[in-house]
Amino acid sequence: MTITIAIDAMGGDYGPPVTIPAALDVLAKHANLHLILVGDTSIIEQVLTNHAYDKSRLRIVHASQQVLMDELPSQALRTKKDSSMRIAINQVKEGSASACVSAGNTGALMATARFVLKTLPGIDRPAIVSTLPTKNPQKNVRMLDLGANVDSSPEDLVQFAVMGSVLTSAVDNIQSPKVYLLNIGEEEIKGNELVKQTAALLTQSNLINYQGYIEADALHSGEADVVVCDGFVGNVALKTTEGVARFISYLLKQAFTRNIFTKLIGLIARPVLKTVAMRIDPSRYNGATFLGLQGIVVKSHGGASAHAFAFAIEEAIIEAEKQVPARIKHEVEQRLTSSSSPNGSN
Amino acid sequence: MTITIAIDAMGGDYGPPVTIPAALDVLAKHANLHLILVGDTSIIEQVLTNHAYDKSRLRIVHASQQVLMDELPSQALRTKKDSSMRIAINQVKEGSASACVSAGNTGALMATARFVLKTLPGIDRPAIVSTLPTKNPQKNVRMLDLGANVDSSPEDLVQFAVMGSVLTSAVDNIQSPKVYLLNIGEEEIKGNELVKQTAALLTQSNLINYQGYIEADALHSGEADVVVCDGFVGNVALKTTEGVARFISYLLKQAFTRNIFTKLIGLIARPVLKTVAMRIDPSRYNGATFLGLQGIVVKSHGGASAHAFAFAIEEAIIEAEKQVPARIKHEVEQRLTSSSSPNGSN
Repeated sequence: MTITIAIDAMGGDYGPPVTIPAALDVLAKHANLHLILVGDTSIIEQVLTNHAYDKSRLRIVHASQQVLMDELPSQALRTKKDSSMRIAINQVKEGSASACVSAGNTGALMATARFVLKTLPGIDRPAIVSTLPTKNPQKNVRMLDLGANVDSSPEDLVQFAVMGSVLTSAVDNIQSPKVYLLNIGEEEIKGNELVKQTAALLTQSNLINYQGYIEADALHSGEADVVVCDGFVGNVALKTTEGVARFISYLLKQAFTRNIFTKLIGLIARPVLKTVAMRIDPSRYNGATFLGLQGIVVKSHGGASAHAFAFAIEEAIIEAEKQVPARIKHEVEQRLTSSSSPNGSN
Repeated sequence: MTITIAIDAMGGDYGPPVTIPAALDVLAKHANLHLILVGDTSIIEQVLTNHAYDKSRLRIVHASQQVLMDELPSQALRTKKDSSMRIAINQVKEGSASACVSAGNTGALMATARFVLKTLPGIDRPAIVSTLPTKNPQKNVRMLDLGANVDSSPEDLVQFAVMGSVLTSAVDNIQSPKVYLLNIGEEEIKGNELVKQTAALLTQSNLINYQGYIEADALHSGEADVVVCDGFVGNVALKTTEGVARFISYLLKQAFTRNIFTKLIGLIARPVLKTVAMRIDPSRYNGATFLGLQGIVVKSHGGASAHAFAFAIEEAIIEAEKQVPARIKHEVEQRLTSSSSPNGSN
């Protein structure tokens, strides 16, 4: 099956010098892959001249504008109709590409994707989902929402649970992913109103493999396949994870460079420390998906390296191969309809 | 100034074998300290026989019951009126002690403390506050609420900001602590309704040194002295921190014990790794304060070692010395009154 991915070549902190080498790297790995590089043709062509690649599987679509990293989403939506981001999303809308990948401004990407592609029938709000490593090297956990929605309703969270479940099932080949609801354990009747009401809905729905509550210190334990939460809470958890990992790596670096002896020890310990760094390397987990849209949109970290950006493209490829939006559409029809009318046609 | 601290000797996963050695250790360090050990007299006396200590500064108050770690707070409140936890809190209520420390059931401790001591005038709901390490070894950050309240109101968060500010000012000798509001950065108009409304209130109040929003990846950066958030969000951030730290230390341990060579390298690197482990050692940050009550209650982690439990007692001592509840009462009268009627008597 031929897969075509549109890439916002201009997006991110570095643009073409990062996005294009990553794109060519992935192109070389997948014989069935076609790429559309969207952006300033002259800049893209200039970067391409330095590389060898299969020209029959790559084409450029020109875009005269670029969305800035700090631009307001509403402004980008209104004034940047010929931006590389918008045109890349248009490729998906028009059916020229099965997915698009951008390292651009998250808010603008979400607003534009939602405006151009629309949400799937039965989905009120798209969610951002990403993977986190667990103790089990063979298994990641997917968490959503990571910041697309704040003040979510219980119904939103149920939709997130269905979408996360479908994505994990399709991409990770897990037949019935274990879905947990993020909660805290301090309260007598645990959780806030949102969590309690969502739990009631998820418990009723026997079509999701709902396992109950999980606390944030168990995110990396490997028990959950999917963790569902409001976007404010999910974003705080994700950013906390990044902050703690960076803090510990700062402390390690500091400790190993304190003096000539610690530097020597650091040199000796380096290969071992590197294996740990690789397991939690954010590059490997780069590529957050906007779930719930009529099309696949994968968001790379703005500061991603070419190595990291390639992972985001790989995520887009697998979601395109597995036709994730069509599956979500199907499952939403099946699951949310049957759960809202449990005594329906039977 | 003589300080008397009541200790729930039976609380926590281990009880007297942990709480008593910790108590005696701290007693030896502070000549002005008196301790009341609350619990089963015969068990306490038995543990005490193995130790030398200044008998004139320690007494036992008998309690015939014990709150279990998994007991429902409402049940503990109703049926455990002669528990070591309740009697320890009573010591504070009656003025026999300036503070109490317990490693017992968090929910039961909060419910009992709130019932017995009551909140300070002007404070609607007590908050749980704790310290986290930052890149700056001389500086910690205090975060609240960590789980006492969910579905907080903007007014609650303003009260947390005032209380956190007073505590930090008193204990850390920072004249005008920098207070931040935890937020996420994905939304165009950032944050959820709670955060936006709280920000509006904090911006109006020129008596708190409010610095604006902070994202969760900057918790350890050292810029903030106090970070304010709803208890659900704060608990998720705290638990995420614990989970990530544990996950990374698991990966390090695994990497260094893979084979004979990595074990040897681990042996060499151990002293350096230990300096890092010490910086983020949860023992050092043990002791969460229930802020906003008419008395000082410090909660130790249930699984704390004697070493860790001693830190919780130290926290209680310093808060007692600085008379934190009286200061909060004073500041609440000053600040919340003046901020709610800015054009008042002047």
